[in-house]
Amino acid sequence: MDELLQEEDLRNWRRTHYSKEIALSIGGDGEVIIMGWVASIRDHGNIQFIILRDMYGEIQITVKKRECSDSLFHLAKEVKEHSSIGVRGKVRPQEKVPNGAEIVPIEIRVFSMARKAAPFLVQSRMSTVGLDTRLDLRAVDLRRNYLGSIFRIRQTVLNSVRLFLSEQKFIEVNTPKMIATATEGGAALFPIFYYDREAFLAQSPQLYKEQLTMAFESVFEIGPIFRAEPSRTNRHLSEAISIDVERAFVDYNDIMSLLERMILKIVDTLKEKNQDDLEYLQLQLPSMELPFSKYNYSDIIDRLQKAGERIQWGDDISPQIMKSILLHEHLNGFYFIIDWPTSTKPFYIKPSAADNRICESFDLMCEGLEVSSGSTRINHKDQLVERMAKQGLKPEAFDYHLRVFDYGVPPHAGFGLGLERLIMALTKVENIRDVTLYPRDIDRLAP
Amino acid sequence: MDELLQEEDLRNWRRTHYSKEIALSIGGDGEVIIMGWVASIRDHGNIQFIILRDMYGEIQITVKKRECSDSLFHLAKEVKEHSSIGVRGKVRPQEKVPNGAEIVPIEIRVFSMARKAAPFLVQSRMSTVGLDTRLDLRAVDLRRNYLGSIFRIRQTVLNSVRLFLSEQKFIEVNTPKMIATATEGGAALFPIFYYDREAFLAQSPQLYKEQLTMAFESVFEIGPIFRAEPSRTNRHLSEAISIDVERAFVDYNDIMSLLERMILKIVDTLKEKNQDDLEYLQLQLPSMELPFSKYNYSDIIDRLQKAGERIQWGDDISPQIMKSILLHEHLNGFYFIIDWPTSTKPFYIKPSAADNRICESFDLMCEGLEVSSGSTRINHKDQLVERMAKQGLKPEAFDYHLRVFDYGVPPHAGFGLGLERLIMALTKVENIRDVTLYPRDIDRLAP
Repeated sequence: MDELLQEEDLRNWRRTHYSKEIALSIGGDGEVIIMGWVASIRDHGNIQFIILRDMYGEIQITVKKRECSDSLFHLAKEVKEHSSIGVRGKVRPQEKVPNGAEIVPIEIRVFSMARKAAPFLVQSRMSTVGLDTRLDLRAVDLRRNYLGSIFRIRQTVLNSVRLFLSEQKFIEVNTPKMIATATEGGAALFPIFYYDREAFLAQSPQLYKEQLTMAFESVFEIGPIFRAEPSRTNRHLSEAISIDVERAFVDYNDIMSLLERMILKIVDTLKEKNQDDLEYLQLQLPSMELPFSKYNYSDIIDRLQKAGERIQWGDDISPQIMKSILLHEHLNGFYFIIDWPTSTKPFYIKPSAADNRICESFDLMCEGLEVSSGSTRINHKDQLVERMAKQGLKPEAFDYHLRVFDYGVPPHAGFGLGLERLIMALTKVENIRDVTLYPRDIDRLAP
Repeated sequence: MDELLQEEDLRNWRRTHYSKEIALSIGGDGEVIIMGWVASIRDHGNIQFIILRDMYGEIQITVKKRECSDSLFHLAKEVKEHSSIGVRGKVRPQEKVPNGAEIVPIEIRVFSMARKAAPFLVQSRMSTVGLDTRLDLRAVDLRRNYLGSIFRIRQTVLNSVRLFLSEQKFIEVNTPKMIATATEGGAALFPIFYYDREAFLAQSPQLYKEQLTMAFESVFEIGPIFRAEPSRTNRHLSEAISIDVERAFVDYNDIMSLLERMILKIVDTLKEKNQDDLEYLQLQLPSMELPFSKYNYSDIIDRLQKAGERIQWGDDISPQIMKSILLHEHLNGFYFIIDWPTSTKPFYIKPSAADNRICESFDLMCEGLEVSSGSTRINHKDQLVERMAKQGLKPEAFDYHLRVFDYGVPPHAGFGLGLERLIMALTKVENIRDVTLYPRDIDRLAP
C-alpha cells in the first residue's frame, strides 16, 4: 500500500539544498536533494515540467521521457499540483527559468499526493475567491505568494521590534491571560470557567506591565489580547497580538519619541530585508521624518467646528473625519493626536497638571487607522482610586493592583500597539483578517 | 499637597546614568541624575546612607549634614525603603561601595514614598516568608535580587531560543488561543463563552503549527498554553509559556538533534551573558556533550522489571523512578527517552513503520523533570483518521484540520517545550511558581 511505502520516505534522505541555492550548484557534479510542493505543472507530451516550491522560491524539474526511466516518467505524469514531493537529481543551467537552472531528476518521491484541486490559484496576485472560502482552508491559502510576502514582512516587523526594544534595555515579559477582574471596566470581555470560579480573558496586559516597572523598569510583552466586540469591521479582531511597552521614569513625550523611533527602525529594516516582498506587493514605504506631526485634540475639534462639522469637545474623532481633514497633510504618514479629554480615556491615565480635564495621552494614527495609544500613567494610589471612582469602577475589585502602590511605584508611561493594525498600515492591506494567520471574530472560531 | 507637587517630578529632568555607569563618571565635573528605588538605608546621625537600586545594580547616596542644605538633609531622613526616588548629584570615588563611587546629592526628588514596610527582605537570598505571601505582593517580591537573577536568565533563554531558531530558518507565528475543538482529547480544558457559543482555551498550538508547515516549512511559536489540571504539584501551572517548534521534511531524529543543539546554545549563551546571575545563584551549569544520551522506553522497562519494580510495558515511568535509575549516569544532565508505546501518546504521532505498537516519539528529561516532548507526526489523512478513531476521538470534530491533508501535507516533526520547566532545570529552582511572573493554578487567579 502507498501509505506504508511512504512511511520510509525520508529514510536515508536529507534535503541538501533549497531552491535559492540551486544556481550555486551548477557545474558541480554532485547530486542535489530538494523538497517542497508542486506549485504548477506543464505537460508537453514527452516533457513534463514540474515547478517545485520551497520556502525560498521555485525551481523547475524537467522530466524528459528520453532522459529518465519509464517508471520515473510515469510518476512525474501522475503528480498533482500541491503534492508534497522530494527530488534527487542533477542541476543543469537553463536560462529563462527561476534561479537560472533546472533539475534533471534521478529519483522523485511523492511524500503526500494532493487529492483535490485548490479552490484558488496560489500564483494569482489577488484572490479570485471570497475571504471565507480562503479562511476555511487557511493553511493552503497561506501558500499564496501574496500572503507569503505579507507574513515575511510580519516576521521582520516582530524581529525589529524585539531588537529595537532590547537595545533600549527593555525586558520581555509574559503576563497572565486568565484574570479575575476586568482591566478597564467590564465591557467586551470573554468569560471563562476557571475551575469553580468565573474568570475573564485579558483584554490587555495593562495593569501587569505597569506593576512590573517597579521591579524591571522597562518591560514589553508581545502576546494575545482578547476583545469580545461584536463588530464586523475590517479592522477589529476578537483575538489580536498586542505589542505592549511600559517604562519607568519617563512620561508620554518620551514614549512618543520611543514609539516613533521604533516605527522608523521597522520601516528601515523592511527596506533592507524585504525588498523582494515590497516589490512584489508594489509597496512604497513612507519616507519617515522624525518627529511625527502632533495634533492637539482640542485644536482638531476647533478646526472641525470652524469647518462646520457638528462635533463637541469630548467627542471621539472618527477615522473618516481624521482622514478627510488631514489627508492633504499626511500622504502615507504617521501622526499623533495628543492630550485627549480625561473622560474619554481609562482610569489609569494621568491628568495634566495644568488642566485635569485633559490627560497626558496620545493616539498614533496612520492615515485614518488608529495603530497605537499610550500615555503617562498615574503612579499614586489616592489619585488612582479617585479616577476609578469617577469612572464607576470599584476600587475593591482592584485590591491586588492597588496594594503595590504602597511600595513606591515609579513614574511611568507606555503604549499598546496592535501588531495587525501596524501591518495593515505598512502593507496597505485593507482587511485585518488577511494579515492574521487564523483570524477570530464574532462569526469565525475555526479553523 | 504632595501629590500635586509630584505631578511635576520629571519636568526638566531626565535620567542621565544607570548605577553601573556611575564609576565611569568619576573625575568628570558634570552632574549625574539617577533614578531608582530605595533598597536600604543606614542612619548614622549626621550621615545618612541611601542605597539606590536601579535595573543594573546599586549605588550609594551619601547625605552628610555638613555637605547639603537643611531641607535636603531633612528629606533624606524622611525617605522610606522601597520609595521611588531620583537623585541629582556629583560622583565621588569611594572604595568599598558598589561601583567604587558614591553620589553626593544636590537634589533628591521623592517620586513616590513607600507607605508600608515590605513583608520580606529584598536583599535576602532565600525568602523568609511563605510563597503565598510573596505572590500576593508579586511586583514587590520581584524586586528581590534572587528573582532578578532568575528573570534575567529567563530573558537570555528566550533571546537565545529566538536567535537559534531564526538562524535555522524558522518563522515565528502566533496561532489562536480560542478554539472550537479540543486538540488532544477533551481533558483538562478551560471552557469560554464565545459570543453565543462554547469554545475552549488552547492547550497547545499543535494542529496549527503542523498545518503551517504546509506553507512556511519551519515554524515556531512562543506563547501561552492553558491546562485545567486540578493539580497542586511544584511543576504544573494552569497557564504556562510553551516553545513550540515544527518543521517540514524531517523526522524525530532530526528534531532531537535540533533540540539538543538549542539547549547547548542556551547554556553557552547563559555562561557568556549571565555570569553574575549564575554566581549569585551559585549555579554551575552542566557541561553539555552532544548528542544527549537516548534511552529506549522498552529497555528502561526491562531494566526496571529486572530490578524488581512492578511495572508493565505500556505504563508511564514516574519521575521518581527515572531519577533513581539514572541518577548515577546523569548528574546535572539532559537525556531522551525515545520510542514510547503508541497507546500512551496523542493521535497525531507517527507509529514506527517497523512496529506500530511503538511510535517515533521522545521525551526530553532533565534528571527527573520532563522538559519537552516531540515526535514525527502523521502526514496522511487516512492514517490520522484511523488513529483518531482508536483513541475514541470523532474525526468530524477535526474536519477543519483534516481537510488540509487533501493538499499535500509534508512529512514533519516537532516538539513542545515548557519554558518554565526549562528554567527550573537550568536554575534548580524547585517550584515552578517562582520562575513565573504571575503564576496561575487551581488556587490562584490573582494578582
